[in-house]
Amino acid sequence: MNRSMIRFVLGSVLKIEGVLLILPFLIALLHREKIGLWFLPVAAGALLFGFLLTIKKPASTVFYLKEGCVCTAMSWIIMSVVGCLPFCLSGEIPSFTDALFETVSGFTTTGASILTSVEALSKCMLFWRSFTHWVGGMGVLVFLLAIVPMSGGSNINLMRAESPGPSVGKLVPKIKATARILYVIYFVLTFIEFVLLMIFGMSPFEAICSAMGTAGTGGFGVLNDSFVSYTPTLQWIVTIFMILFGVNFNAYYLIIFHQAGKAFKMEEVRAYLGVIIVAVTILMFDTVKIYDSFFTALTHSSFQVASIITTTGFASADFDTWSQTSRTVLVVLMFIGACAGSTGGGIKVSRFILAVKTFFKEIGGYIHSKSIKKLTMDGKPVEHEVLRSVNVYFLTFMFIFTTSLLLVSIEGHDLTTNFTAVAATINNIGPGLSMVGPTCNFAFFNTFTKYVLMFDMLAGRLELFPLLILLTPPVWKELLHPTSGKA
Amino acid sequence: MNRSMIRFVLGSVLKIEGVLLILPFLIALLHREKIGLWFLPVAAGALLFGFLLTIKKPASTVFYLKEGCVCTAMSWIIMSVVGCLPFCLSGEIPSFTDALFETVSGFTTTGASILTSVEALSKCMLFWRSFTHWVGGMGVLVFLLAIVPMSGGSNINLMRAESPGPSVGKLVPKIKATARILYVIYFVLTFIEFVLLMIFGMSPFEAICSAMGTAGTGGFGVLNDSFVSYTPTLQWIVTIFMILFGVNFNAYYLIIFHQAGKAFKMEEVRAYLGVIIVAVTILMFDTVKIYDSFFTALTHSSFQVASIITTTGFASADFDTWSQTSRTVLVVLMFIGACAGSTGGGIKVSRFILAVKTFFKEIGGYIHSKSIKKLTMDGKPVEHEVLRSVNVYFLTFMFIFTTSLLLVSIEGHDLTTNFTAVAATINNIGPGLSMVGPTCNFAFFNTFTKYVLMFDMLAGRLELFPLLILLTPPVWKELLHPTSGKA
Repeated sequence: MNRSMIRFVLGSVLKIEGVLLILPFLIALLHREKIGLWFLPVAAGALLFGFLLTIKKPASTVFYLKEGCVCTAMSWIIMSVVGCLPFCLSGEIPSFTDALFETVSGFTTTGASILTSVEALSKCMLFWRSFTHWVGGMGVLVFLLAIVPMSGGSNINLMRAESPGPSVGKLVPKIKATARILYVIYFVLTFIEFVLLMIFGMSPFEAICSAMGTAGTGGFGVLNDSFVSYTPTLQWIVTIFMILFGVNFNAYYLIIFHQAGKAFKMEEVRAYLGVIIVAVTILMFDTVKIYDSFFTALTHSSFQVASIITTTGFASADFDTWSQTSRTVLVVLMFIGACAGSTGGGIKVSRFILAVKTFFKEIGGYIHSKSIKKLTMDGKPVEHEVLRSVNVYFLTFMFIFTTSLLLVSIEGHDLTTNFTAVAATINNIGPGLSMVGPTCNFAFFNTFTKYVLMFDMLAGRLELFPLLILLTPPVWKELLHPTSGKA
Repeated sequence: MNRSMIRFVLGSVLKIEGVLLILPFLIALLHREKIGLWFLPVAAGALLFGFLLTIKKPASTVFYLKEGCVCTAMSWIIMSVVGCLPFCLSGEIPSFTDALFETVSGFTTTGASILTSVEALSKCMLFWRSFTHWVGGMGVLVFLLAIVPMSGGSNINLMRAESPGPSVGKLVPKIKATARILYVIYFVLTFIEFVLLMIFGMSPFEAICSAMGTAGTGGFGVLNDSFVSYTPTLQWIVTIFMILFGVNFNAYYLIIFHQAGKAFKMEEVRAYLGVIIVAVTILMFDTVKIYDSFFTALTHSSFQVASIITTTGFASADFDTWSQTSRTVLVVLMFIGACAGSTGGGIKVSRFILAVKTFFKEIGGYIHSKSIKKLTMDGKPVEHEVLRSVNVYFLTFMFIFTTSLLLVSIEGHDLTTNFTAVAATINNIGPGLSMVGPTCNFAFFNTFTKYVLMFDMLAGRLELFPLLILLTPPVWKELLHPTSGKA
């Protein structure tokens, strides 16, 4: 295990976080909030430790997938622990567990909150909360790759461990260039949404927080009622941007480089939009009886479908009061999730496409006993290895889900609450149904359950394996007793 | 498609059912129930049609997996339609849909009932109801294979379509001999349970019905409260036999031929017993606070765990009133199910063993980037084809489950009811939780939902694919417009 390289990456992550923590301090200055001073010591601490860890350059920058996983899992845990300190030191979220829950929920772009009143928080804290979504959405290691020079070949293992989807989408041969292009697209889209929200009536502060929450497909808002009290125009803007951030970023890359035709032919993008259209249609006809007009039903259906399938978790209506059909459709969307290579969570549309294709291939195998064709995606044959990893992903997801459900059930709430709480955290959505519905929060869970759900949020964001690898005894043995690599 | 062979098999199935229908008539004679006369015309009709369909021997007995699937699916549908006629003609279950639901539930050994009072039924009808469990448990086509001569090689495709588990367990090289051995073991075990239940206080009628319900892992009882009012001794006898019928029958074959050591080393049997012990322990410590003694808690925990994991569905207590932890454990057991090659339903322990092994192999692959060992089961390497089919099985199960959940949700009941109703039918268990808990029944569902659940029961019993194959357009085209095979 290349421990010196892990140390170096963790140090770099701390340095980045130290810099990021200065931003909410500036917001505090702007709004003359004294409480914002708490960001300074935390930022200073992170920077100091970061510098100490990175003074010595690593002897070797060779990095295997194992190190990529360990590094990613540790980075996210450390980021969350450091990131929760301002909440907890300032006393705005006095309990460490709660502050950590809120921060993990932020970085993993889940948006599940333990706050009973969001509006009680100071502006700088609200900003930091939404900012964690933006940072977590694209991933801090992808950011690292964009700015820190690393030896070729090894860095793909970092990207692979942090990027969502069954296979890593390198846009261009160089990882560094890919990471930069991703961040540019991400930044530009966020900025356009921010401007539009301001034009149509939001204050700059609300607009920046909402835009960051949408971009990372997070879900933290700045109002207690999420998006219920905003105008339909603002709701539609957010709906459209939620859908946009759930699209595979490869599509934007293709569009930028004048290959829009190719982008619209991507099977994943088509399937993703198809599912959205079908779901919106069902929900619209189902909710039209409770809303005054067809248009209102369409607005709320579109908003909720976009919010859940992209795993953002904003709400423009209390969908827990909708009919069982609508709620079941939303629960199914929770698992499907957004496109691979987007900022959204869930199992990902491309994995479902491959699963459906595997299923039809099997049926075909029964009917025409010979002639087994290779599966294709976007016209190209799918590697056996990718199919295998998709299958394993579903199995692993099922195990983590079931184990979490059992652990959460110890607390004794109803099945709907437990099931959707686990679904909403492992898929990085935020709200679920029943006691964790859109008008409720996660504060009532006990400490043990909160840690289970934090595990689920991290597991879901990092696509299960990095966190599991970190927990295996052989990895711990290697971390503590180095036999290979120089410490 | 070999249509003449399909016709011949369906005719044979009808003849067998015709003979079987005489048994409840004899029970009616014994108890002087006039209503039992209704079995005669149905039996006569089945025999007549059976003879007509089998007059002409099929030109060729060559049979591919496709024909095996189509034949199995059609046999089970026809069996159920014919089998429900006595209920519905006699007026004991006036609605055709309800009568069909009860019969499908019987043959598939589900045990979900639409009856609000079981005790209101006449004895001969109760006997027929429990008898369908016994027939469906081992499978009517396995019975057919045991008695009808078929050309070598082709008949394995019938067995494969009807037998549970990821790979077909031929005990001996000849299918016919295998089928006979299975039925002998099945009959002897049922008989022993019947005798024991009588010795410990059941009437012969109750004993035979309960024994048949246990043997097929069905769940229909003859009392309204299932097993609540029986003595602990009787409950324990049933517990032990439920567990025995959930064991892979290969184990019994090994024991009979003096290879008991080998039987106890079967990984599936060990895992199955291991899961039972763990679940009973959790439930016992969880329920001891509601029962007067440790022993009572142990009795009820063992009974319920055995009933649910073997997918029998008897109840010795209203487990819907137990704590959320216990109920969640039971819901998880619903999906695991019994051993492959047993009469039980569910996804099957062996599939989970392979899934867990696949998972650990994946983790191992991350940690030791080389050295991928082949998966083994009982010391033998597992074929790639078996692993693939296990993965596809999980995916297909998930699709059918989700689609059913969406369709059932249209009726508007709560998620727990819908979720466990689908889980209890597709896994062939019987009772679920909430509105379909052990003290409730399935009568309240509308006709549409009942047909969805019937589909699930059949899909679950036939391990998903035969029914799906029957529904594909190419198969229908071939059935209606023969291009290959002689009609």
